[in-house]
Amino acid sequence: MDIGAEMYAQAERMYPICRSITGNGVRETLAIIREHIQIDIHEVPSHTKVFDWTVPREWNIRDAYIKNEKGERIIDFKDSNLHVVNYSVPINKKLPLEELKAHLYTIPENPDWIPYRTSYYDDTWGFCLSHHQMQSLEDGIYEVFIDSDHSDGNLSYGELLIKGETEEEILLSAHICHPSLANDNLSGIAVLTYFAKYLQSISHRYSYRFIFAPGTIGSITWLASNEDKIDRIKHGLVVSCLGDAGNPTYKCSRQSEAEINQVIEYVLENSGGEYSIEKFSPYGYDERQYCSPGINLNVGLLERSKYGTFPEYHTSADNLDFIQPKYLQESLELIKNIISVLEANKTYINMQPKCEPQLGKRGLYSAIGGDLDKATKQLAMLWILNQSDGSKSLLDIGRVSSISFELLHQTALLLEEHDLIK
Amino acid sequence: MDIGAEMYAQAERMYPICRSITGNGVRETLAIIREHIQIDIHEVPSHTKVFDWTVPREWNIRDAYIKNEKGERIIDFKDSNLHVVNYSVPINKKLPLEELKAHLYTIPENPDWIPYRTSYYDDTWGFCLSHHQMQSLEDGIYEVFIDSDHSDGNLSYGELLIKGETEEEILLSAHICHPSLANDNLSGIAVLTYFAKYLQSISHRYSYRFIFAPGTIGSITWLASNEDKIDRIKHGLVVSCLGDAGNPTYKCSRQSEAEINQVIEYVLENSGGEYSIEKFSPYGYDERQYCSPGINLNVGLLERSKYGTFPEYHTSADNLDFIQPKYLQESLELIKNIISVLEANKTYINMQPKCEPQLGKRGLYSAIGGDLDKATKQLAMLWILNQSDGSKSLLDIGRVSSISFELLHQTALLLEEHDLIK
Amino acid sequence: MDIGAEMYAQAERMYPICRSITGNGVRETLAIIREHIQIDIHEVPSHTKVFDWTVPREWNIRDAYIKNEKGERIIDFKDSNLHVVNYSVPINKKLPLEELKAHLYTIPENPDWIPYRTSYYDDTWGFCLSHHQMQSLEDGIYEVFIDSDHSDGNLSYGELLIKGETEEEILLSAHICHPSLANDNLSGIAVLTYFAKYLQSISHRYSYRFIFAPGTIGSITWLASNEDKIDRIKHGLVVSCLGDAGNPTYKCSRQSEAEINQVIEYVLENSGGEYSIEKFSPYGYDERQYCSPGINLNVGLLERSKYGTFPEYHTSADNLDFIQPKYLQESLELIKNIISVLEANKTYINMQPKCEPQLGKRGLYSAIGGDLDKATKQLAMLWILNQSDGSKSLLDIGRVSSISFELLHQTALLLEEHDLIK
Repeated sequence: MDIGAEMYAQAERMYPICRSITGNGVRETLAIIREHIQIDIHEVPSHTKVFDWTVPREWNIRDAYIKNEKGERIIDFKDSNLHVVNYSVPINKKLPLEELKAHLYTIPENPDWIPYRTSYYDDTWGFCLSHHQMQSLEDGIYEVFIDSDHSDGNLSYGELLIKGETEEEILLSAHICHPSLANDNLSGIAVLTYFAKYLQSISHRYSYRFIFAPGTIGSITWLASNEDKIDRIKHGLVVSCLGDAGNPTYKCSRQSEAEINQVIEYVLENSGGEYSIEKFSPYGYDERQYCSPGINLNVGLLERSKYGTFPEYHTSADNLDFIQPKYLQESLELIKNIISVLEANKTYINMQPKCEPQLGKRGLYSAIGGDLDKATKQLAMLWILNQSDGSKSLLDIGRVSSISFELLHQTALLLEEHDLIK
Repeated sequence: MDIGAEMYAQAERMYPICRSITGNGVRETLAIIREHIQIDIHEVPSHTKVFDWTVPREWNIRDAYIKNEKGERIIDFKDSNLHVVNYSVPINKKLPLEELKAHLYTIPENPDWIPYRTSYYDDTWGFCLSHHQMQSLEDGIYEVFIDSDHSDGNLSYGELLIKGETEEEILLSAHICHPSLANDNLSGIAVLTYFAKYLQSISHRYSYRFIFAPGTIGSITWLASNEDKIDRIKHGLVVSCLGDAGNPTYKCSRQSEAEINQVIEYVLENSGGEYSIEKFSPYGYDERQYCSPGINLNVGLLERSKYGTFPEYHTSADNLDFIQPKYLQESLELIKNIISVLEANKTYINMQPKCEPQLGKRGLYSAIGGDLDKATKQLAMLWILNQSDGSKSLLDIGRVSSISFELLHQTALLLEEHDLIK
Repeated sequence: MDIGAEMYAQAERMYPICRSITGNGVRETLAIIREHIQIDIHEVPSHTKVFDWTVPREWNIRDAYIKNEKGERIIDFKDSNLHVVNYSVPINKKLPLEELKAHLYTIPENPDWIPYRTSYYDDTWGFCLSHHQMQSLEDGIYEVFIDSDHSDGNLSYGELLIKGETEEEILLSAHICHPSLANDNLSGIAVLTYFAKYLQSISHRYSYRFIFAPGTIGSITWLASNEDKIDRIKHGLVVSCLGDAGNPTYKCSRQSEAEINQVIEYVLENSGGEYSIEKFSPYGYDERQYCSPGINLNVGLLERSKYGTFPEYHTSADNLDFIQPKYLQESLELIKNIISVLEANKTYINMQPKCEPQLGKRGLYSAIGGDLDKATKQLAMLWILNQSDGSKSLLDIGRVSSISFELLHQTALLLEEHDLIK
């Protein structure tokens, strides 16, 4: 089975689980991830204060339905966990259609799809259903039943630190709170899982921190619990919606000149495919928290189709048909490319900064020219030597010299071998 | 009577007075302003050293004429105070036409108009007249008479400080030295007078300093006498030519990134009308002094038609027909808009800078979306919270977010109420 | 004889000499320069360590040829010193054509021209010849003879310091290592020689340091021997290829905002002719060394046709027909213009920075206007006074004001006379 199919299979296993920002669905999901990579699972008690927020009570749901007068389950949680407004309070009541309607949510524009709704911080309940279903409801008395509870428990998240040569970290973060939605964000979870596996097979200078946590409250909880580690994070990515057919979309981190932004722009520019890059804005996924002014990490958001812009977003149509193995694989490759450039994009110091070093005596200079390839390689050496005063990364040098990053990288390794730069 | 008509009426009363950089015409003008707003009137003695300059002796004039051989007053100061070169020394002499002509000034291109000329620092005399008048002069002996005197006295200027919540000041300055010229600058005097009246009816954080002083020597005198106050002035405007039919023209202050420049650019951009914005240059009105390198205040120049570019400039055609109540009113409204943006354009600090604050628990978040208006309001909150690290004003945030200043302003007030920013 | 013809005559005398990076050809060339200007001639012993390099042994050559089986000199060093690969080791050997060909260099695209080749740091030998000559060689045994030697000796270079009012220096550098190539770089040597003569006839604030040295190893040797003097060098030019019919080409120094770059851009923009300006790159002539990161001088490269871009480059076609007196003269004039702007491009301080100084009492203000020329002059005064806060040179003021550098320069001298700026 190829990697794309493996990631798809992981998504498939996670799909039926009813996740939320807390509860057993999250734990089951983390357990599946843990079958692949050795994440630590953290449990943070309800009511823990995390910055301006408080960890909510844990929500679990066992069953829910709407029955008509004949006692038929016309809406059944067992058919789709999207049917219940996420975090609904328990209810067991009969009420007329008119009253029921105030608790029903549909998408009139896409009348076959069930919307995804949540109400984490308001004590309320509701059902989501297709617009056609709602239109078919006849007047009468309905029985609504939600067997859920909000109880003191924990918020769960997974974390994995893969150490590199240095303590400088790259953060990779995916939200794990959405129930049966495939692209948003089982795709992101699967791609990060397999990227972590890949990373363990190669050497790297950065350490990598993976966070699998519920959106918003999860990243806030991590940040509030790990303030001492924040300074180590040099770059980062939030990932979501990595399995659909759309082209890559990157939203820059808050500090527009950040290296992560430059690297991704470079990689996408040179990918040969279409893509879009957007400026930072404070609406989106957990980059909102990582890029808040008091945290201000260089964390961008990588997606294929942008959240909120495709009709399937936050509906039952974001299902296992909406994602495909080949797109998961493309996304994994894209992240590998981004990381390989980040890893290679060092800022060197010329160890012989006064005049050019004598390349010839080191066998680095082809005395009698004519070899265009050699000429370009020499030019790459001269550019790196000239610009490596500690202020410019290889990517910066690529921009001024118009020499490819790959050639600069290879040339830098060669110069480093000869102790000309470090 | 509407405000435009009131301002026009004030200009009408000031029009006949023969003003100069010193003398009783200036005092009469200040007295008229003082009927509206409680300016302090300062008298600075002749020969006072003000930086590189010296306050000149006071000039007063009672009568002046040129008589022909028949004893007819062919040029009469009583017809127009422009007829006499401003600051002319007294003269009482008969002389032939040929000799007289060396002291006559006309505008050949506009042969019906009398030019406005001055000679403050050269002891000379002269008459200004229409080109047609000069052409009609026949050979012969003429009697010239100027009943003026230069005597030790004072330079007079008016000043009003309207205190706000803070000691930070906005300077508003108009020159009051021109004789019967309506647009330049009775329009500016009237608009500032009525803006001061308006300001006393509203609350404001800035303190406002109004200076009504003769051009050049007046602003130099004020600056030299008030060096200790200069640091309080954060922004300022010199105003002139605010009554004609032209579109607004703004010349930026010396420091191109100054907030006053950004604010006026924003206001004019959003005014719906045509306008022009020019870079700073060291020629013009009293912004020359306020923007000299050793003073370097952020003071720009606001006009409608730009000085020196309209044919009526510095001629008898800049009369009460050249200005209109509606343009005075538009100018007043423009200044009100500029000031309201300056007042509102605060730089806030997010009090919960680590991750987003929980808007929901403060009732600032609409849990179940769909209200586009609410969505925009929330986005405005997120932008302000995200960017308010002390480096960005609301106007700066407007530029990156493309959210209207008005919405940002309202949102900032709301967030401030909830102690989320200050 | 005009100056262009004189420079051409100097080039003509230097042309036949077989130069290299060391040896008697260099000494003869320096002796010819010394007939015009009193350069010091430095001799640096072989094996001297200069940064990462070592001064090579001295190379001298007396004779060289290839004889055919009939004993005819079919390639003769006496016909053209380009025939021998520069720095060839001695050889005296008979060998068949096939074996000989490995040591022969031609230019197939320009089959009548002899290429110029060197092998300074590889112990090898070779001959250069026209492609037609090579094609006419018949199979057989050839006798190759090179009477050269590599012996402990010296590297020679010339240096001249012309002191100005200050110790701040402008560096002017030309490479002197190429044998019979006229444009590259007898043209540069001749133009610098005559510029030095000219400079001795005028007064100047900068001191000027002229370096006539072999390429690469010469400038490295100078820099390594004069590290204590490097800080005095504020601006500099490497010159080459100044005698051909091409338009001026300037390659900027490493620090793109350097004054020398701005000055040359200004001069070329205002020259009325075509020109090109290129960004810095680390390939070229001795600016590579002057602009290495540990030296980082503001030294650009001035040429007419750019090295490597014209077909005659590094071939026997770069001969005395390829350069012309009028182009040498134009180049000299261009350097004079550049230097005159650099000399005049001071950064002044306004001595009366608070408000405008009173120009009138100093006779600097024309009280009654109308003289357009006077108005422009006054505007120039106002601009200089307003901007001279120590952060802006006259060239900077020219850019913001759109006033010509010449008028600003004249005006600055006038204001300096009146102690208004210094």
